This record gives sequence, C-alpha cells and structure tokens, in this order.
Amino acid sequence: MGRGGDADAMPDEFSLIERLFEPLAGPEGLGLKDDAAVFTPRVGYDLVLSKDAIAEGRHYLSSDPPDTVAKKLLRVNLSDLAAKGATPRGYLLSCAWSAETPLDWMQAFADGLEEDQSKFDLSLWGGDTIRVSGPTVFSLTAIGEVPSGRAVTRSGAAPGDDLWVTGTIGDAALGLLVAQGEYAGTEPEDRDYLISRYRIPQPPVAFGKQLSGFASAALDVSDGLLADLDHLCAASQVGARLDRSAIPLSPVFKKCTTSTEERWGLVYGGGDDYQILFAAPREKQERVVDLARAANVQVSCIGCLTEAQDVVVLDEAGQSIDVAPAGFSHF
Amino acid sequence: MGRGGDADAMPDEFSLIERLFEPLAGPEGLGLKDDAAVFTPRVGYDLVLSKDAIAEGRHYLSSDPPDTVAKKLLRVNLSDLAAKGATPRGYLLSCAWSAETPLDWMQAFADGLEEDQSKFDLSLWGGDTIRVSGPTVFSLTAIGEVPSGRAVTRSGAAPGDDLWVTGTIGDAALGLLVAQGEYAGTEPEDRDYLISRYRIPQPPVAFGKQLSGFASAALDVSDGLLADLDHLCAASQVGARLDRSAIPLSPVFKKCTTSTEERWGLVYGGGDDYQILFAAPREKQERVVDLARAANVQVSCIGCLTEAQDVVVLDEAGQSIDVAPAGFSHF
Repeated sequence: MGRGGDADAMPDEFSLIERLFEPLAGPEGLGLKDDAAVFTPRVGYDLVLSKDAIAEGRHYLSSDPPDTVAKKLLRVNLSDLAAKGATPRGYLLSCAWSAETPLDWMQAFADGLEEDQSKFDLSLWGGDTIRVSGPTVFSLTAIGEVPSGRAVTRSGAAPGDDLWVTGTIGDAALGLLVAQGEYAGTEPEDRDYLISRYRIPQPPVAFGKQLSGFASAALDVSDGLLADLDHLCAASQVGARLDRSAIPLSPVFKKCTTSTEERWGLVYGGGDDYQILFAAPREKQERVVDLARAANVQVSCIGCLTEAQDVVVLDEAGQSIDVAPAGFSHF
Repeated sequence: MGRGGDADAMPDEFSLIERLFEPLAGPEGLGLKDDAAVFTPRVGYDLVLSKDAIAEGRHYLSSDPPDTVAKKLLRVNLSDLAAKGATPRGYLLSCAWSAETPLDWMQAFADGLEEDQSKFDLSLWGGDTIRVSGPTVFSLTAIGEVPSGRAVTRSGAAPGDDLWVTGTIGDAALGLLVAQGEYAGTEPEDRDYLISRYRIPQPPVAFGKQLSGFASAALDVSDGLLADLDHLCAASQVGARLDRSAIPLSPVFKKCTTSTEERWGLVYGGGDDYQILFAAPREKQERVVDLARAANVQVSCIGCLTEAQDVVVLDEAGQSIDVAPAGFSHF
C-alpha cells in the first residue's frame, strides 16, 4: 500500500493509526509512535494481564455493528480482569483487517473503543495494524492492577463455600441463536435485548474490583456455566452442588425458551455471558450482598462447594439430575 | 470441536494449551488456567510493553519452518523492547490457527518458542488459542522492564549526535527475495545465510539493555533504514546526514547484490533487519564501542543528526545524492 494518494482511498498504516487510534492513546502509549508503551507501575500493586483474540465469523458475526465488535473485544478481556479482582488501566490492540474492511467500519470500531474507554476508565497503550487475506482477527491485551498478593485465582475455594454468580445466565447464548435467524417469532424488543446481550457483554467491572475482599475463587462465565464450574472445582480440588432453581434467568430468557430441555441446555452449556462465577465463605454472605447492591450488580447464590470432587445438579424438587457437561468451545 | 476422541485427532483447546504451552509458562501465568497472568513489578522499574502481529503469507511464508516463525514472532517484539533499553521478562501469545495447521506444525512452533525463551530468558504468561477460516495470524505481547525514567524513546536525539546502527543492513530483505525464488544462481551457503536472516531476526537484546546509558533516541530497523531514520528525525525534530559508505553490509550481501541500484534499494527500503538505529552524543563514542564489544555486537557510526529537518544521503565521494524514501509497508 503506497503513501499519500487521494482522500477517499484507504490510508496507509501510519495514517490509519493516526486517524483511528491516536485519539484513544494514553500517555503510556507515547503517541503510538514508539512501537512500545512505557508504564510506571504503582508500588504495592500487582499487575493482571489478559489477552483474548476474536475472529470474524467465529466470535462475532460479519453483520454485527462494528462498535459492538470493539466493545465485545475489550469486554471479554475486562471480564477476565474483573474475575481476578483487578481494576483496568490500559490495553494494547492488534488489528488484522480483512481486505474487505472499509474505512468507515474501522472508524466505527474505533468509536466503540472510545466509548468503552470512557465507561471503564482505561486507555490505549499501543499495538499493531496489519492486513490479512482471510477474515478479520483482533487480539487485545488488557492490563489491570490489584493490591499486591490480592489477585483472586480459581484455586482458593474450599468445601462449604457458597457458590455465587453475577447477572443472568443464558441470555448471550440465546441472543446468538436469535441473531443467526432462529426464534423467528420473537418480539422485536425481546430480540433486541437478547442480541445485545450476545453482542455487548456486561462484565461487572466495578464489582470485580471488590472481589478480593470476599471471594475465595472466581472466574468469568465464558465457556458455559457447567464447564466454568468444572474449571473452578478442578483448580480448587473441590466438588459442587448446584441448585438449578437458583440460577438467575432474565424474564426475556424465561419467556423465549419454551422447552425445559432447550432452556437448561443454554444455561448449562451456553457461553459468552461474561458474568463472574465466584466462591465465598458462608460468613461473607451479607458482605457480598451489600457490595453488590452498592455496585448495582445482581448476585445470586446458586449452590455450594463440597468435599466430593464432582458437580451435582439439583432440580426444583431438590433431586439430583444427570446433565452432560458440554461447554461452548471457542476453539 | 468435540472433546476427547482418538489420539491422532486434533486435541481440543484445553488439551492443546496443556500440551503445547503449559511447558512454556512461568509462575506469572498461573498454569495458564486463569485466563490472566499476575505479575508483581519490581520497585524502581518501568514496564515496556510491545505488541506485534504476524500473518501467514504476509510476514512469513507458509513454507517457513514453524520454529523460525515462532522465533520471528517473539523477536520482532524483543527488538522493540531492546530499542527502549528494556530487559525482557515475559510474553502473552494469541494463536489464530488456520484450519489446515497440523498438530506437528503447532508442536514445532512451540518448540521454537521454548528455545528462544531459554536464549532470551523470559517465559510465557498467558494468551489465547482460536481457529480461523483464513490464514494463521499470531499476536504477541512482550513485557520488559527498564529502570524508572530510563526508557529510550525516539524523541530525545539532538543535532550533533552521532547516528549508529547495530549489525548489518539489507540481509533480511535480500533473504526474502531469495526465499521467494529470486537469485536462483546463489550458492547454497549464501542462500542459507540470507534466508536465515529473513526468517530469524537477531535483535541485539543484551546490548539493548545498555542503551539508556548512552543513547539519546533509538528504534528498531523494521520498516527500512530510511523510513525508520525519518521516524526518528520526525520524533526528535532533527535532520540527519547519512554516510552511505559507512552503512554496514555483510560480505554475503555485498557478494550477492551486483547492481548498485539494487543494493541501495534493499539497504534504504528493505525492512525486517530488526537491528537498532540509535543516536548518541559524540562524547559517548568510546562507551558505545566498549559496550558493543562486551555484548559481542557490531556497531557502526553511519552519520550524524543535524539542525536542518531533512535527511541527506552522501555517497562514497561525499556528494549528496537523491534517494526516494520508500519503506517496506507491513500493512
């Protein structure tokens, strides 16, 4: 790609970075001129780093609005920081644009990032912009901070701890099906709600910053509730009892899922909610509820952790039921 | 992609990460189980972060051996850290594998990373593994540290400073042409040398750690010598006089480039050498030479910086010559 050229042509790499990304850069990014960021960590804090990639046609649909793609990319990483108890500070971004990506799509993508930077109080530190002959692939590295030694991992849960989840479960998985043309009879406002839950995750970032005050273990619900619960149990070497009736479902989700099988399939195995699944000692219940209320986040106690190293799901009558764990594979 | 299956089948995402990448993980990576890394920065140090992506068919050839692709990916980022005066500590990696990538290619790629981790003394902290329907795209974020306030930027050079470069220039650009089938008459050992220079950059990482002791500005030669010199001059608001005869060329490069035009075209505009172009005050000459000798790195003084804000190239007779700056665009 040559330099200069007429105004309507795609700008070269440097002009594109100047136009799209320099307005997003924080001081750590050195004006995006230096191929690297320089950041002075605060004494007394650990850094938490998360790096997730999303690809066109796999993690988002080509028809998704570009600002929502940008927000999803950022938020799937902010969700990982939140589950560690970290406060976001900055991010680096790689864009591998497909040859078909028009400039206005790129601009709308950058605008989406700008909105979320402001919402979540972080800035762009650097990255890279390339062209590829296949579908667009983005990769983002988010950096957050947590008081030293206070990062919440997956491995600290103990038998007897309560099992909690933020927000509602299943909306994103159902939203994907709706976006793909299923559930044709769904009412417009319900469609909008569900699709937006798929496109724009709502990770509880402000609540996540408090996690190290009460959580013994945490992770985000990205692979599906049962698969992620498996990850937590395996890392903490515990089992779990999950009370199905306590799993938080949105009114729209309940209204739009008609069969029991379909509903629980989406709840157990659907991914992409990017809520936080966490364990906390029983005596912290009141604290959890108070902090969630202060952060304006819904929390639900959905079971407890056990000595036995397996996951038991109880139905509405308290009877153990067989479920085939089948998480959504992003791979 | 399903779970389990027969031994010859491609493993699922989690098994693949366990097999390929867990052996590479440092303690900051939390066993690659937590979707995030936790790192305690050393007091008194700034962090330098670099993120570069490479795509199959654009930054490396499908026929390149996978271990060299891994090394190139890591080294283009280590080169950015070196040019800031930083010491590498860790990295995060996103792999977006094309559907055609076989497991043994992935394994050889991981083996290449392992060799370079050992050579450059850093470890894997985390990342992400996905599949894409187009060509493979990798993105890597490298994290290094530099004593607080001592990072070398592009913007600190002053008129009168010497202009230096490490290693030799042009080999990588010629190596790419050879790898693409040009220069058919080249002798085998010369071919091997040039192709290896294209495939496996040799950034002067140990020398880079010393940069803040003498360099007023620095960057890596990735876009082409003249384009990168332009970047340095623009950031430092200076001009430059470049003595063409002082530019370091390898014996093989000199032997294989027959026409003057071809030779200087590759030197001025060829990218991918990943050497360091730096400015240093005249009184630091001896120090630069001593430190380079200690680090076993070739350094050449190729000109100086000037008040006039343009770049003048002098030929072997000291005459100013016209050159059309045309950097290699990675975009």
